[in-house]
Amino acid sequence: MKPALIVIKIGGVIIDRAADLHVFLRQFAETPGAKLLVHGGGKGASDLLHALHLTPQLVHGRRVTDAATLDVVTMFYAGKTNKQLVAALHPMGVNALGLSGADGNAIRAVKRPVHEVDYGFVGDLTEHSVNVPLLWQLLAGGITPVLCAITHDGLGQLLNTNADTIAAAVATALAPHFTVSLHYCFEKKGVLLDVNNDESVIAQLTPNDYARLKQQGIIADGMLPKLDNAFAALAAGVDTVIIGHALHLRGPHQTTLCRN
Amino acid sequence: MKPALIVIKIGGVIIDRAADLHVFLRQFAETPGAKLLVHGGGKGASDLLHALHLTPQLVHGRRVTDAATLDVVTMFYAGKTNKQLVAALHPMGVNALGLSGADGNAIRAVKRPVHEVDYGFVGDLTEHSVNVPLLWQLLAGGITPVLCAITHDGLGQLLNTNADTIAAAVATALAPHFTVSLHYCFEKKGVLLDVNNDESVIAQLTPNDYARLKQQGIIADGMLPKLDNAFAALAAGVDTVIIGHALHLRGPHQTTLCRN
Repeated sequence: MKPALIVIKIGGVIIDRAADLHVFLRQFAETPGAKLLVHGGGKGASDLLHALHLTPQLVHGRRVTDAATLDVVTMFYAGKTNKQLVAALHPMGVNALGLSGADGNAIRAVKRPVHEVDYGFVGDLTEHSVNVPLLWQLLAGGITPVLCAITHDGLGQLLNTNADTIAAAVATALAPHFTVSLHYCFEKKGVLLDVNNDESVIAQLTPNDYARLKQQGIIADGMLPKLDNAFAALAAGVDTVIIGHALHLRGPHQTTLCRN
Repeated sequence: MKPALIVIKIGGVIIDRAADLHVFLRQFAETPGAKLLVHGGGKGASDLLHALHLTPQLVHGRRVTDAATLDVVTMFYAGKTNKQLVAALHPMGVNALGLSGADGNAIRAVKRPVHEVDYGFVGDLTEHSVNVPLLWQLLAGGITPVLCAITHDGLGQLLNTNADTIAAAVATALAPHFTVSLHYCFEKKGVLLDVNNDESVIAQLTPNDYARLKQQGIIADGMLPKLDNAFAALAAGVDTVIIGHALHLRGPHQTTLCRN
């Protein structure tokens, strides 16, 4: 039987709230067994860009990562956020070790090709992106990897990658070796039937339900890439995918994705 | 017989010069066997402090690390500099993995006690600071640790530590397991007899010579803590200590410290 592994992704909002973050980290620390944390950015990176008079460039609503922006997000995600999370976890008994994708070639990405839009230094993942032996070696040694969303191309270039995508890719790549549970944590209790009603959590979501709710526009915007990633991970061998509140890691209200 | 390990410390000036840094990294990559890089900061952190309108505070000529400054140096050293070095080393065939002291509890420091001066979030090292099993495990796995000078206290607080001191502590802690060669690299060819003559390199420096040259004021300023660290490492079991130019890792002109 494969050992259990929990892969948890936290987003920016929780990172920006020190007291909430502490509650989350405490729950993360109390989660038994092998675990791995993937974190997004938070508002701090935007604030830092603003303080340095760098204007975030948006094309079709997506941020373009130019060289100056890449420097700032690398400093913020791989430097400040990552190291603060790692330092906070140690006194909670978690032997955390922070990694960007460049560290030990943990996550190698491909710079997004320029078609209509040049997204700049943005890295897309392939099925060979995750360095499974490295993560396996760390986990086997009782270490908890803490991954930020900065990757590299193996040719010397750092790249900015979506943290949801990294979490799904890591969970999928480790699925042959672990029974993987993938948790997307954010500031809602789960996937909502009514975006204005925080209690309208869908307890179980099947691919068919998802297709229907997407078509009806009930699930939209930022939830779409998250759920696309999540269902793909489930189809590719991840045992369980849960979407829920960062402050209630073990429920009771959360969305569990169903294979069919 | 113990395996060989080379511990190289590079300072800020080389990091600020992209072309020189590339030459250094290429020489580092071509150094055979187990190796470990410790890096300082560079002018970029000061520039970033300035851009954010944070004034570096100096007390008795030493920088005081307040909370805002710690954030900035953590971002810069552990984020930008560390990840750029790591990303640059991979295409040169070096499986580099960046670490702050918090990562895997690599280097645990003690916040400097407040006596006459409160240096703020500055971490001093003890003889138990270095996590030898972690570094051993990484090195045995063919990984090259790249250490920045940000440490932690194990209680959740990041700290700013002198990179020369970290290099000496790592070299000393690993000396029971490796035949360690410690190289301090900077923008001079070695320890100079005449600070205005770059060619006046002292080829071999004994503790007695050092004491005399220090008393005469011939060796002064920034060289003193570097050499104090270096001689202490030599006395504590490091096999070889060399001080030389970052662009001429293998000489011919450099200063080798002598045990007696």
